[in-house]
Amino acid sequence: MAIRKKLDFPVDKVRRFLEPGPIVLVSSAHKGEANIMTMGWHMMDAYDAIACYIWDQNHSRALIRGSRECVFNIPEVSMAETVVRIGNCSGRDVDKFAKFGLTKLEATEVDAPLIGECFASFECRLIETSLARRYSLHIFQVVKAHVAPSPKLPKTIHYRGDGRFMISGEETTRWRKLFTPAMLADP
Amino acid sequence: MAIRKKLDFPVDKVRRFLEPGPIVLVSSAHKGEANIMTMGWHMMDAYDAIACYIWDQNHSRALIRGSRECVFNIPEVSMAETVVRIGNCSGRDVDKFAKFGLTKLEATEVDAPLIGECFASFECRLIETSLARRYSLHIFQVVKAHVAPSPKLPKTIHYRGDGRFMISGEETTRWRKLFTPAMLADP
Repeated sequence: MAIRKKLDFPVDKVRRFLEPGPIVLVSSAHKGEANIMTMGWHMMDAYDAIACYIWDQNHSRALIRGSRECVFNIPEVSMAETVVRIGNCSGRDVDKFAKFGLTKLEATEVDAPLIGECFASFECRLIETSLARRYSLHIFQVVKAHVAPSPKLPKTIHYRGDGRFMISGEETTRWRKLFTPAMLADP
Repeated sequence: MAIRKKLDFPVDKVRRFLEPGPIVLVSSAHKGEANIMTMGWHMMDAYDAIACYIWDQNHSRALIRGSRECVFNIPEVSMAETVVRIGNCSGRDVDKFAKFGLTKLEATEVDAPLIGECFASFECRLIETSLARRYSLHIFQVVKAHVAPSPKLPKTIHYRGDGRFMISGEETTRWRKLFTPAMLADP
């Protein structure tokens, strides 16, 4: 896996990569320890925020809650085996960056590392935890986005549970003509 | 568009259809009025609950908040034009079931109608609204699920914003062997 050179990207356009529902790798760091979790339960919550489920048994939860930061990284399908392996071990037992040969790159706005090998990385600050205890729900503000310039749209991995995956398919704008102008005007 | 015959499906397996991130059609009814909204901002929140973003300018929000119920319906790619048109008009101005020739089918557990033409329909009760005002966030419990028996996995539509869409592609279990047994044991 090669390090992907990434360019600055508008934070209010990250839906382009997140809204289709790919598996993401969430990286975090706190008190000298870094970790990565594989995540499928996330959503856009307005154009520059992400809501997601972080279980209280996830080792990353303590790092994210302690630092109030993380990075949402988008892996392409070429990283699928690593993505699955990351989701099937715990940061309690292993250093996942070392074990999987992933590169920590310095972020701009947060202390959590970007994952160099991923297609895109979105630096986030934790802004809402009132439903964390009952629903494991956390809301993050995206504060900085980095995206590889090529390909324009990555082939991503989407999870169905029980070891079943969907890989992103055809890209199209053929229904764009049906939109009203206001509905195409993202922020 | 034909009405899809659907069979009972385990509510704690609906992630199979929602977790990959498709656009859904949310149907609702309250005080004699029914409506449909097109939604891309949703996530699994545990195995039998769905969190989603419902803006206070969406006409459906009053119906859903008033009845505390809705149905998440999964349209296949063959319905894409209708899905986009539904998202580009308001229930304030039109009866969307009539305008788009969609069939209201009676649900089992809720008063909101299933959309007959959709591949799957998940009846939901609203269980959490404390972040609705600040983050437009609503959490629903899935109380009954109906899924067409064929095909096993539908071709779905995934939105990227700005009139761009991704259509679900290859389905695979080729990374299933990398899972630990506990990680395959859904509820």
